[in-house]
Amino acid sequence: MSDGEKHAVTLLSGGMDSATAMAIAMDMGYRVHALSLDYGQRNMHELQSAGKVARALGAASHRVAKVDLGMFGGSALTCGMAVPKDLERSGEGIPVTYVPARNTVFLSLALALAETIDTGDIFIGVNVLDYSGYPDCRPEYIKAYEAMANLALKQAVEGRVKVAIHTPLINMTKAMIVARGMELGVDFSLTLSCYDPGPEGVHCGRCAACGLRQKGFLEAGVDDPSEYFERLDG
Amino acid sequence: MSDGEKHAVTLLSGGMDSATAMAIAMDMGYRVHALSLDYGQRNMHELQSAGKVARALGAASHRVAKVDLGMFGGSALTCGMAVPKDLERSGEGIPVTYVPARNTVFLSLALALAETIDTGDIFIGVNVLDYSGYPDCRPEYIKAYEAMANLALKQAVEGRVKVAIHTPLINMTKAMIVARGMELGVDFSLTLSCYDPGPEGVHCGRCAACGLRQKGFLEAGVDDPSEYFERLDG
Repeated sequence: MSDGEKHAVTLLSGGMDSATAMAIAMDMGYRVHALSLDYGQRNMHELQSAGKVARALGAASHRVAKVDLGMFGGSALTCGMAVPKDLERSGEGIPVTYVPARNTVFLSLALALAETIDTGDIFIGVNVLDYSGYPDCRPEYIKAYEAMANLALKQAVEGRVKVAIHTPLINMTKAMIVARGMELGVDFSLTLSCYDPGPEGVHCGRCAACGLRQKGFLEAGVDDPSEYFERLDG
Repeated sequence: MSDGEKHAVTLLSGGMDSATAMAIAMDMGYRVHALSLDYGQRNMHELQSAGKVARALGAASHRVAKVDLGMFGGSALTCGMAVPKDLERSGEGIPVTYVPARNTVFLSLALALAETIDTGDIFIGVNVLDYSGYPDCRPEYIKAYEAMANLALKQAVEGRVKVAIHTPLINMTKAMIVARGMELGVDFSLTLSCYDPGPEGVHCGRCAACGLRQKGFLEAGVDDPSEYFERLDG
């Protein structure tokens, strides 16, 4: 867009990380176009949370794009496999909640939107410390994605924009994300982390994502505003 | 898949190029899992053609994945802009029929499917000669995509598969594609190239894609089995 302002696309899942990434983008002076993906997850409450976060933080726009990953199977988040209820991951491998090629698909839709609004700046709330099992959260993956995207977009090839995949949380712990989000005025009570929330969007408290969330607030020394069906440590 | 056979994903649009790419993959000994994308194009006849081609060539499977690119606008194929009816492209630029980040989005969904069926082999019928206006049809883009994909997939990171984006048509003219397809038994009467077909799926004969199609058959010296509303040179 040629309105003299800096525009960016932010992938917004409805969780704590993407909400904080969006707040960081806004703090950097970007007008943020939020993009949420409806990828056939059981977790539709996430999308409602994304809408609330986009409104609360003041997104320039918020789009929900449907993409049919469920048909491919391969993940507990989309294909009806049981979500593991123990907070420890089973071994060192990649968690069963992995969605095939998820960040690649999500970044590609963000890239389509970025091309449409004529910007190259894309924010994604990945971080390596808490989610080291996901190969598509690593800096070397992000760098390679950026290189590819700069060869894909007509604006980039014509030298009018440069694609930059911003990952402001990439080296943060969940506690650091909580602290930074609080500084920037993120209302974490609007966010949802749970892999398997109750019918009213209440956190189960026992899945891996709920475990990281509770640990994050504890370690940041911040009151946890979330409602849990069952709390960690009591 | 660990059935002792070679499996590949082929992006199948319903046009001549992807049909030929699929036939080449099969000729190379792959069991082909065809993937068509329903991306909100006006051109729904394309998807019917894809289904006919998949059946005729004997795909191991054929999936149609919905992905909502239409909401992003920016292209005559998805947002209701007029399709140019003159066969010459307007100048040297990128055609208005460009869909934002299209091959990046399509390859990413192919990658998700490849991950699910545990293969790294993906075929896409891009070619640089006839479509030089699309930056995401160039070999340097494909190479960069491949590098990124090998960092994205858990199987690749664990060293179990290597992602290879096969582009068997990349340096072929349309005439060479026609000739190779005929050799491999592709029934081109099942394919649809037109950007703006009539209600019964008849080629308009006047859009850029119809122009290339007719020229391809002419130059290959092969009878054109297509029905056109209006034929080139006659």
